[in-house]
Amino acid sequence: MSSPEPVEPVEPDPPEAGARFRAEIYEQPQALLRLLEHEPDYERVAELARERGASTVRMVGHGSSDNAASYGVYAFGLRPRWTAFRDSISLTVHYGTKLDMSGTTAIALSQSGRTPDVVTYLERARGNGAFTVALTNDPGSDLASVAEAVLPLAAGDERAVAATKTYLNQIAALGLLASHAAGKGRRFATSIRLVAEELGELIPELERRVIPVASAFSFTGRMFIIGRGPEFASAREIALKLLETTRIAAEPLTATDLAHGPVAALDPLFPVWAIASNDETLSAVVEGAERARETGAVLIASGAAANAVPDAAYRLPLPDLGSNLLGPLLSVVPGQLFAWALARARGLDPDRPRGLSKVTLAR
Amino acid sequence: MSSPEPVEPVEPDPPEAGARFRAEIYEQPQALLRLLEHEPDYERVAELARERGASTVRMVGHGSSDNAASYGVYAFGLRPRWTAFRDSISLTVHYGTKLDMSGTTAIALSQSGRTPDVVTYLERARGNGAFTVALTNDPGSDLASVAEAVLPLAAGDERAVAATKTYLNQIAALGLLASHAAGKGRRFATSIRLVAEELGELIPELERRVIPVASAFSFTGRMFIIGRGPEFASAREIALKLLETTRIAAEPLTATDLAHGPVAALDPLFPVWAIASNDETLSAVVEGAERARETGAVLIASGAAANAVPDAAYRLPLPDLGSNLLGPLLSVVPGQLFAWALARARGLDPDRPRGLSKVTLAR
Repeated sequence: MSSPEPVEPVEPDPPEAGARFRAEIYEQPQALLRLLEHEPDYERVAELARERGASTVRMVGHGSSDNAASYGVYAFGLRPRWTAFRDSISLTVHYGTKLDMSGTTAIALSQSGRTPDVVTYLERARGNGAFTVALTNDPGSDLASVAEAVLPLAAGDERAVAATKTYLNQIAALGLLASHAAGKGRRFATSIRLVAEELGELIPELERRVIPVASAFSFTGRMFIIGRGPEFASAREIALKLLETTRIAAEPLTATDLAHGPVAALDPLFPVWAIASNDETLSAVVEGAERARETGAVLIASGAAANAVPDAAYRLPLPDLGSNLLGPLLSVVPGQLFAWALARARGLDPDRPRGLSKVTLAR
Repeated sequence: MSSPEPVEPVEPDPPEAGARFRAEIYEQPQALLRLLEHEPDYERVAELARERGASTVRMVGHGSSDNAASYGVYAFGLRPRWTAFRDSISLTVHYGTKLDMSGTTAIALSQSGRTPDVVTYLERARGNGAFTVALTNDPGSDLASVAEAVLPLAAGDERAVAATKTYLNQIAALGLLASHAAGKGRRFATSIRLVAEELGELIPELERRVIPVASAFSFTGRMFIIGRGPEFASAREIALKLLETTRIAAEPLTATDLAHGPVAALDPLFPVWAIASNDETLSAVVEGAERARETGAVLIASGAAANAVPDAAYRLPLPDLGSNLLGPLLSVVPGQLFAWALARARGLDPDRPRGLSKVTLAR
């Protein structure tokens, strides 16, 4: 029976769909710890910004980096009470407008450090008088070379097209910088270390909880993600993960903006994900979720205050870290895992989003 | 045959679906002219801002007002070269953060002047040292009463739930204020007058052109609207009109952000509307549209440079007004008419968006 036959070359198993994306979600606790190795850089840059009186912060980035900047608005506002905002790239890069940027710190966020208009922006911001800072995973990049100060993201090589650990490190980095600017950096660093531990235990448990929830949305075409305050950044980032990997038309909104128009688009086939935390914005988020529910929209509630959202069909509660600047370090994770699980449930490979590559060179 | 019968009381015809929305779209040229009657107020407020050295502009608003603020970023950037940004309302209102707002002008945008968190924001901004300006359709409103200066929107009573003429007057108002701050207000006012004339002729023609285009999207569930520079405001406002009146999950993106992730969600059933103008952002918009087209997405191209977008299935070209701050005064209009026509094609009444009322009191 067993006649000698030519041995077929063994083909390696095709990698499991989304294996890379999932591995980097799991790697986030380690990435956070790597960031902390660079804490002295964050302390020094905060000190430089203070010395230069550059206490207004303009941030630029695209995609996940821009979402992280939304977190920065709150980190700088709540900690050193500095005004921070997401600046227009077009004004400086496309229109060549020479704004007086003295008295401001310009932080350019780019994982690769190669996003063309972000590099050009920072170069010109320096010419316009800003204190220029590059927050990047590659301290040898073009972006780093045009900046006066470089903050290493230290997330480690990111291979998945959809960013996870670099986003998490970006918000941790902005929180650390803002906390140092307020003289509270050491304490924030300690908190990040605790979050990393917490997250290490939480991720496998969350994965188990998220898979059946994601499955229910296998045929969903549209979704709003609402959050307010620092959690608006989480809403934006979860929406982007869904767009990148699941093809859901996911749109982030502040809980209040939902009521100012978009609520009219909702119906039972247009679900809403509400991120609720135990802070001053909770009532606005609950009210937004209630308005959504009145249209028949199905609710997913996540965050430390997930149980405060009435009538949610699905809940993904998270531990309460006792600080609204720490909450976003956990609350994006159920969204990452949801995107991973849902993409697979839909027969898509989250490691192969159509039309995307790791480094986007679009201008 | 004609036996005397009791006369039935004549019921008035039910109002045509969207009659109010359409009437206010048509009223926009008149609304612009009414704004110009208040030009001296704009000149005076620009002068006050300069005198106070309040040459950084923070703007707040929800819905259409927030979209208009996106235009303001470019109007203040391109004209007086002032840094302008959409400020966080939550920081000041929900978290009670006391930011140092000296050296800044805070402009609160609210048609009704009654949006609760916008009123609270402006009150506190004044306490934080900002020069506070209310831009409102009701100079007798709460918002006006807490501001140091009031700029009348003068759009006339707005009865349709979905804003049209108040949005147009808001962007014209921000352009006028920014132009006066740069010493070029008189010229901008003259241009607005010409735009009003142009628009009066354009609207009926656009209505005819838009109806068959809208009809093709009768069963569309999702859409991206892309623009860059001042036209990003138009993209945001068109997306909001679609959400409010047609239930399309319409999401605005800058042309560049589309490439940084969301493009992966596109397919032939997920169309993209590209707003193209003849300015420094045109190549970014064309590139974004091309990337979208590669996924099979159907393109609508509008704006003065609509014909520069390759392979668009539908085109709604507009006259070139020769200024990128004037373009948005025209380019939102095809979107308004498209929303009106599409809502009707879908059997919806754009005057009765579900869950919305004219004045939103959500916090």
